[in-house]
Amino acid sequence: MAKEKKLVESITPRSEDFAQWYTDVVKKAELTGYTSAKGFIVFKPAGYAIWENIQKELDRRFKETGVENVYLPLLIPESMLKKEGELVEGFAPEVAWVDYGGSEKLTERMCVRPTSETMFSDLYSQEVQSYRDLPKLYNQWCSVVRWEKTTRPFLRTREFLWQEGHTVHATREEAIERTELMLKVYGDFAEEFLAIPVIRGRKTDKEKFAGAEATYTIESLMHDGKALQCGTSHNFGDKFARAYGIQFTDKDNTLKYAFQTSWGMTTRMIGAIIMVHGDDDGLVLPPKVSPTQCVVIPIRQNAEGVLENAAKIRDALKAAGIRATMDDSDRSPGWKFSDQEMRGFPLRIELGPKDLEKGQCVIVRRDTREKTICPIEEAPKRAEELLDTIQKDMFARAKDFLYSHISSASTWEEFVDCADNKPGFIKAPWCGDVECENKIKDELAVTSRCIPFGEEGQVHDGDTCICCGKKATKMVYWGKAY
Amino acid sequence: MAKEKKLVESITPRSEDFAQWYTDVVKKAELTGYTSAKGFIVFKPAGYAIWENIQKELDRRFKETGVENVYLPLLIPESMLKKEGELVEGFAPEVAWVDYGGSEKLTERMCVRPTSETMFSDLYSQEVQSYRDLPKLYNQWCSVVRWEKTTRPFLRTREFLWQEGHTVHATREEAIERTELMLKVYGDFAEEFLAIPVIRGRKTDKEKFAGAEATYTIESLMHDGKALQCGTSHNFGDKFARAYGIQFTDKDNTLKYAFQTSWGMTTRMIGAIIMVHGDDDGLVLPPKVSPTQCVVIPIRQNAEGVLENAAKIRDALKAAGIRATMDDSDRSPGWKFSDQEMRGFPLRIELGPKDLEKGQCVIVRRDTREKTICPIEEAPKRAEELLDTIQKDMFARAKDFLYSHISSASTWEEFVDCADNKPGFIKAPWCGDVECENKIKDELAVTSRCIPFGEEGQVHDGDTCICCGKKATKMVYWGKAY
Repeated sequence: MAKEKKLVESITPRSEDFAQWYTDVVKKAELTGYTSAKGFIVFKPAGYAIWENIQKELDRRFKETGVENVYLPLLIPESMLKKEGELVEGFAPEVAWVDYGGSEKLTERMCVRPTSETMFSDLYSQEVQSYRDLPKLYNQWCSVVRWEKTTRPFLRTREFLWQEGHTVHATREEAIERTELMLKVYGDFAEEFLAIPVIRGRKTDKEKFAGAEATYTIESLMHDGKALQCGTSHNFGDKFARAYGIQFTDKDNTLKYAFQTSWGMTTRMIGAIIMVHGDDDGLVLPPKVSPTQCVVIPIRQNAEGVLENAAKIRDALKAAGIRATMDDSDRSPGWKFSDQEMRGFPLRIELGPKDLEKGQCVIVRRDTREKTICPIEEAPKRAEELLDTIQKDMFARAKDFLYSHISSASTWEEFVDCADNKPGFIKAPWCGDVECENKIKDELAVTSRCIPFGEEGQVHDGDTCICCGKKATKMVYWGKAY
Repeated sequence: MAKEKKLVESITPRSEDFAQWYTDVVKKAELTGYTSAKGFIVFKPAGYAIWENIQKELDRRFKETGVENVYLPLLIPESMLKKEGELVEGFAPEVAWVDYGGSEKLTERMCVRPTSETMFSDLYSQEVQSYRDLPKLYNQWCSVVRWEKTTRPFLRTREFLWQEGHTVHATREEAIERTELMLKVYGDFAEEFLAIPVIRGRKTDKEKFAGAEATYTIESLMHDGKALQCGTSHNFGDKFARAYGIQFTDKDNTLKYAFQTSWGMTTRMIGAIIMVHGDDDGLVLPPKVSPTQCVVIPIRQNAEGVLENAAKIRDALKAAGIRATMDDSDRSPGWKFSDQEMRGFPLRIELGPKDLEKGQCVIVRRDTREKTICPIEEAPKRAEELLDTIQKDMFARAKDFLYSHISSASTWEEFVDCADNKPGFIKAPWCGDVECENKIKDELAVTSRCIPFGEEGQVHDGDTCICCGKKATKMVYWGKAY
């Protein structure tokens, strides 16, 4: 038990220092590692396996909507990046530039892709000639580089992994529909697969993507009350088409500009999983995304029949489609329990000589520590039910947390009070003026997260902007954010 | 039929100009596209989907041997690259260098990874402390950049996709075992999944990987008689461990250097599939790797019941686990047949009103054009059997081709005759001297492909080097290569 204590004690409690807790968990759960490349992280097996599960499920959901995967060049010629003014302004300050290929100086330098709107537009300008070529619904899984100054594993690093979808359509309406559809895919994915509840809405002009007509977003709330942008979907209208010359002959035989969208989700979602679900003992992974769903831990494993029967349980779990492992290392059971808790695997099954005598095993939930004693032969069925329950319970708890951390403000004083004293989202009316947004950001470090869709985003007669007091035009979710 | 003819005529026959045939197929089958990034290709959906199937199967085979996936930084600090002398010599002339991050000049320039031995070694030097930490069996799926001067889709481009496995072990024997195991995985994969027969062997010192003690390779033969290196597995001994300081405390409490391997397979395999199996009508894809295995083509699709029943067949095929689609576009049946042949999908099923009347459909093999008439309800079962047969037949034909294109030479005259007049591998004894290898390469553009494993790589009493006439020490497969 000494070792167990030591392992657990080495995590800073969340209430004491949330940032340090995060760093501790990432390290202790062995999600990341480091090399001499400053500002870059290594995705170690435990971290990368989470990303693989995210990829697999998202990819499946994309393909269901007709999306096809492609891969475009990593390096972008400078002139290509510069064709769309707003985009280059947004990204130029943070791209990495390649000046030499081998020992030859390039005639034109190239940047390592920070995002690929330019390259997809370049490709589409050649491939889209006729309405018959439309739509194109492409996506790529890749890494991008943005030269961040301060970095934090998963949340902000000089390189991260993501998918970027880029579509091109014959009409504005179709592009809008796709932008909305992909935000729906992201929202459903976050809630159903990662058990992370989100607020869906539209970014203000200040916060939208460089070059987009509209940016839709899903926003989630971390355990420290700060918001995290989880996925965005952009409608570009025909802006890029005009900059890159993407024109097609329509059915009516006239030449038209095409309409585009892009949408992305990144490895930052691993950070969201940690900060929404984790506790003072480490990671807590939702069953659907957890690389290991149940670890079988033999107790007094040298006693007759224990190891053998523990292995049988693991195999029975696997046969039932559960991602199961067995920890038969030479560590103590206490160390193993603590290790499983740190890594956040949803279930563990304990089996000792006493249990074996009674033909039973003990199933322990990671999220609630609740123990269930059950006959060995029923373990797979019971585990399956528990994984289901855990997934639902984790979502319900996170949703309760989110909705109990939304404050409302209708005056500047109330708004300041919320910003200072009430962690979470602040719902407050706004006039629509970027100067108010700037003031709020400068004075309170609070940003507009989104204008929620539908009724919720509407203001009522008499609502006034919490900043300037003028007539409000939009209801906005505000918050401190990662 | 006019359109069909036109489509087919646009491919150059292989016998006329193999290189042009290759270019035509890659373009017409829509495997790649281009952007303004010179020397880089776009993997379009049809090309990328092949890679996805390769990835899925290889990844499964890797994981069965205990391999875990990770992701390491894209950019490598120059000092890190330079730690191992031979490696930097091998790669420095062809790497892309990053000098600026945003608007700041880097204090130390970084290269875009050409391969990641350096970064894995850097990581392992921190993570490997004790024998308990060994082995580590890591792999990553990523892209790499090598500044090639002349490029060719899939075979040689400035960026390509691959996997690179990097393992670290406590003993030399274990590392050798892993090097051999991964070559076995590659060979089995190429033969069983891609229907590409390979020669397995060891590279000569001249041809081995920069910094490796030994490089194992699988070599295949393209339809024009040129060889293609398909996958390599390297044993580094403790060379990198010494350069990067990867030391661990062993069970006997002494500090030891660790032993490493690396192994890779790339998107060049798509080029191999094209050049081993393709014919004058386009691609011919082995069923296991083909993104679409069977396309259902309705004939007179406006006739009553045709489209509906064609869709039913497609759905029945899907239900049987076959990757099936239906081409219900407004093109003519002739165009659709020709399109399916160009794209290389192994089977098509034709269904017209006459067939429908008789309750039958026509199944056509891509590889042999053989037609089978079968009752509609038996289509899934029959298709399944045919896919199986095609996979086997394609491998058998490729194997016949390979083994009928191996010549033997025991004198310089015979060797020159083979090089000039007999496309394929030349099996000939060699003294082991690099000067003979250089001469053969300079004069005949022929390189040593490998020293085959086992008996086959042995020379017999009296065998002399085909170049210098001295005593031979090894039997070598030679060839012109991509």
